[in-house]
Amino acid sequence: MKLNCDMGESFGPWEKGCDAEVMPWIDMANIACGFHASDPLTMDKTVKLAKQAGVSVGAHPGYPDLLGFGRRVLQCSDDELRAWIIYQIGALQGICRSHDMTVDYVKPHGALYNTMMKDEAVLKTVMQATLTALPGCPLMVMATPQHFQVKAMADQIGLPVLFEAFSDRAYDDEGYLTDRRIAGAVYHDPDTIIQQIRQIQREGTVTTINGKTLAVHADTICVHGDGEHALTVVSAVSNRQKSGDNHAD
Amino acid sequence: MKLNCDMGESFGPWEKGCDAEVMPWIDMANIACGFHASDPLTMDKTVKLAKQAGVSVGAHPGYPDLLGFGRRVLQCSDDELRAWIIYQIGALQGICRSHDMTVDYVKPHGALYNTMMKDEAVLKTVMQATLTALPGCPLMVMATPQHFQVKAMADQIGLPVLFEAFSDRAYDDEGYLTDRRIAGAVYHDPDTIIQQIRQIQREGTVTTINGKTLAVHADTICVHGDGEHALTVVSAVSNRQKSGDNHAD
Amino acid sequence: MKLNCDMGESFGPWEKGCDAEVMPWIDMANIACGFHASDPLTMDKTVKLAKQAGVSVGAHPGYPDLLGFGRRVLQCSDDELRAWIIYQIGALQGICRSHDMTVDYVKPHGALYNTMMKDEAVLKTVMQATLTALPGCPLMVMATPQHFQVKAMADQIGLPVLFEAFSDRAYDDEGYLTDRRIAGAVYHDPDTIIQQIRQIQREGTVTTINGKTLAVHADTICVHGDGEHALTVVSAVSNRQKSGDNHAD
Amino acid sequence: MKLNCDMGESFGPWEKGCDAEVMPWIDMANIACGFHASDPLTMDKTVKLAKQAGVSVGAHPGYPDLLGFGRRVLQCSDDELRAWIIYQIGALQGICRSHDMTVDYVKPHGALYNTMMKDEAVLKTVMQATLTALPGCPLMVMATPQHFQVKAMADQIGLPVLFEAFSDRAYDDEGYLTDRRIAGAVYHDPDTIIQQIRQIQREGTVTTINGKTLAVHADTICVHGDGEHALTVVSAVSNRQKSGDNHAD
Repeated sequence: MKLNCDMGESFGPWEKGCDAEVMPWIDMANIACGFHASDPLTMDKTVKLAKQAGVSVGAHPGYPDLLGFGRRVLQCSDDELRAWIIYQIGALQGICRSHDMTVDYVKPHGALYNTMMKDEAVLKTVMQATLTALPGCPLMVMATPQHFQVKAMADQIGLPVLFEAFSDRAYDDEGYLTDRRIAGAVYHDPDTIIQQIRQIQREGTVTTINGKTLAVHADTICVHGDGEHALTVVSAVSNRQKSGDNHAD
Repeated sequence: MKLNCDMGESFGPWEKGCDAEVMPWIDMANIACGFHASDPLTMDKTVKLAKQAGVSVGAHPGYPDLLGFGRRVLQCSDDELRAWIIYQIGALQGICRSHDMTVDYVKPHGALYNTMMKDEAVLKTVMQATLTALPGCPLMVMATPQHFQVKAMADQIGLPVLFEAFSDRAYDDEGYLTDRRIAGAVYHDPDTIIQQIRQIQREGTVTTINGKTLAVHADTICVHGDGEHALTVVSAVSNRQKSGDNHAD
Repeated sequence: MKLNCDMGESFGPWEKGCDAEVMPWIDMANIACGFHASDPLTMDKTVKLAKQAGVSVGAHPGYPDLLGFGRRVLQCSDDELRAWIIYQIGALQGICRSHDMTVDYVKPHGALYNTMMKDEAVLKTVMQATLTALPGCPLMVMATPQHFQVKAMADQIGLPVLFEAFSDRAYDDEGYLTDRRIAGAVYHDPDTIIQQIRQIQREGTVTTINGKTLAVHADTICVHGDGEHALTVVSAVSNRQKSGDNHAD
Repeated sequence: MKLNCDMGESFGPWEKGCDAEVMPWIDMANIACGFHASDPLTMDKTVKLAKQAGVSVGAHPGYPDLLGFGRRVLQCSDDELRAWIIYQIGALQGICRSHDMTVDYVKPHGALYNTMMKDEAVLKTVMQATLTALPGCPLMVMATPQHFQVKAMADQIGLPVLFEAFSDRAYDDEGYLTDRRIAGAVYHDPDTIIQQIRQIQREGTVTTINGKTLAVHADTICVHGDGEHALTVVSAVSNRQKSGDNHAD
């Protein structure tokens, strides 16, 4: 099961994350597009890193709010949201094209991601924007108990979908992420994170906060590229560690 | 000879120009890409207007400086400039694609345009960025006495070039634009502007500030879409007025 | 009763409103501070206009969202909101000081204004920010049936308050503004607007959408400085028209 | 001799420097004002840190260019530059006032600082802006062989001036900083930096790249608060280490 990770979150003089170190261990790089983070040069460097590491590139569009890092919901019309997403996908596609790469998937960021998972009208706009910007390109969404409905919505317009599970978030018994504000909702211990990833990879399940075992229908797992344990986690669970394709010669 | 015009220069709540009125009279719309003006929704609306009017769309990338409207030179590395241009072209190409349109040419804006015409290293970077972003897509540059050198530079990397003349600027005897700071350098009288356009269209020449007649090798003429006389000028000289394709039923 | 009006809403190359024409007719200029509109040079010019016209200057802080013109709610912590407001007041106070002027009152803009009137926690933060930034400086809020509660909150921390009525909005029978999305909620006809202003000025009442006459406890009336009828309205109702202090000699 | 240090250079989600660690060792904090770095909340936190550590606060205004971190020259009119500086000083003064602190001095940042030291017209504008924004507040400039001329210019308008020497830059035999692009122009070795600081503090001289001893008339020394050796350097040369006022419980 592929590991996807947010990349290219620096902005101008401000560096964030350790992209060069993490990139070789992941399979899919969600690259910020300049609205909530990143800038054209950062995107260029990040696409280069992805190419060198043989990593697939995804567009990671967000709300236009650098100060808030795309973590605040921005009220907007459907037309505005669609244009924001298409603009960002296009910009990254331009950068990719200049490196003979392509945008292989789209994964919205932060508040846009959360809003899309809660509000069907927003999800519909995101789906249409993705389809229109890059026909055939899949949208990555959260694997939830609603995944059949989401899949049906996407099928209806001919949009491929990828479902992702989360490596460092606690799941409740219904298969949703527990609220971030609840203690224990976010895992910080690398062993716990590694354990959850391995369980998803090998058994397709997560253990909920109440100890229940629950199936998670995921195509990919989201891991974090920043924080002190990022490298420990990604190197431990990488699909690439066995083949040795990262550290050979 | 085709008329090109800067379009899509509104930003968020601020409107600029009278795009809807001018669009039907021009042939090529240079659409701002969000760095010096415009935003995704404005770009979307402007591409729609262009499509409705059967107008060709060009990317109009500028320096990232909304406050200064891209009229200030921003020092930057070649890598940074290349990434800025490719990002903007890609973003507009994304918007175009969502309307079954394409970016047909690239014309840099403001200080970037002026810098490119003065500094061969910058011109080279702009050329490479255009070629890399959209292979086969022409770059629009100023028709100057150096046009053979510029053409040669472009030919060397396989980049098509379009040369443009200016409708409302006085030319000196060498075929360059006179300095904006000199009185009379910019024409404001619509009759003078119309006269210069017609002379370029029909005879391929301009009359210099000293009354000399000079050949101008231009593929297109730049007209302005804002200001009180914009509509008077473009409707008078439009290629479309005779065919009546704008006002027929 | 004094007329207050939003001023200084241009941004860089984009002009908005007709400040120079409207300024002489109003009493209080709510000047944008660079977060939702304006920029330092625009603020400087607007303070100069206010000084020349003998108009009182108020800070008009908004959410940091130029693209959305401060009309979108931005989620933020109390600390963040307080810092945003104090920063903007301080910036305008700096500009004012350089013209021997002062910020005489604070009136939040757009979504911040609306949020403050709906959410007591936000109102409290705005009050504290105003008090801390400029002790003794009044906060302008909407005159609603809750004005006693608002007055009590302000009294508790020693903050002066100014209440404002609206010239071009329909009131419901409870004394609140009717929802903008309802037809007829916003008046566009200059005569209707002038009539509402005169009624507030002379009788201290408004006529609600259902024809009821309702007392409005207002210290000032908000008029608009943009739109085609702005000048017609402000010149008709200005406190200054009788004294002739604007057009004398 | 007092140590001054750039502080508050984080922006939104992006952290820069180790302000909390460095603050207790310095005497003067040059706080970014939101144009080239920082934001209102960061400024608020940084002023708090300065207050807790008993450190003097200076405004550190820069060109409005977050992406370029104020390191690019932005062409602007005198009026625009003056407004930019006054706005930033005012904003920080607002934040300071809310903590019962004051802006004690002004030190321009990056390209604005360099331009001011090279171009007398810009220096004059900066001087007037500082004087107008905060009468009595000193401007910090580079100690160069021209310091008498600079002092005379400032005296003429009644502006106090502070001269600063640099801790990690090589001086040429004329007393100017050697060009950054020359190898050895910037010191990275903490011992070399500490040695230069001590020589300036104790003897009022620097040793030039050619081994000459040269007097430097400085009131303060600029040290860096980021980089791996920042803490080593500031703790070694701090005026505060002897009195023990930083580490005494």
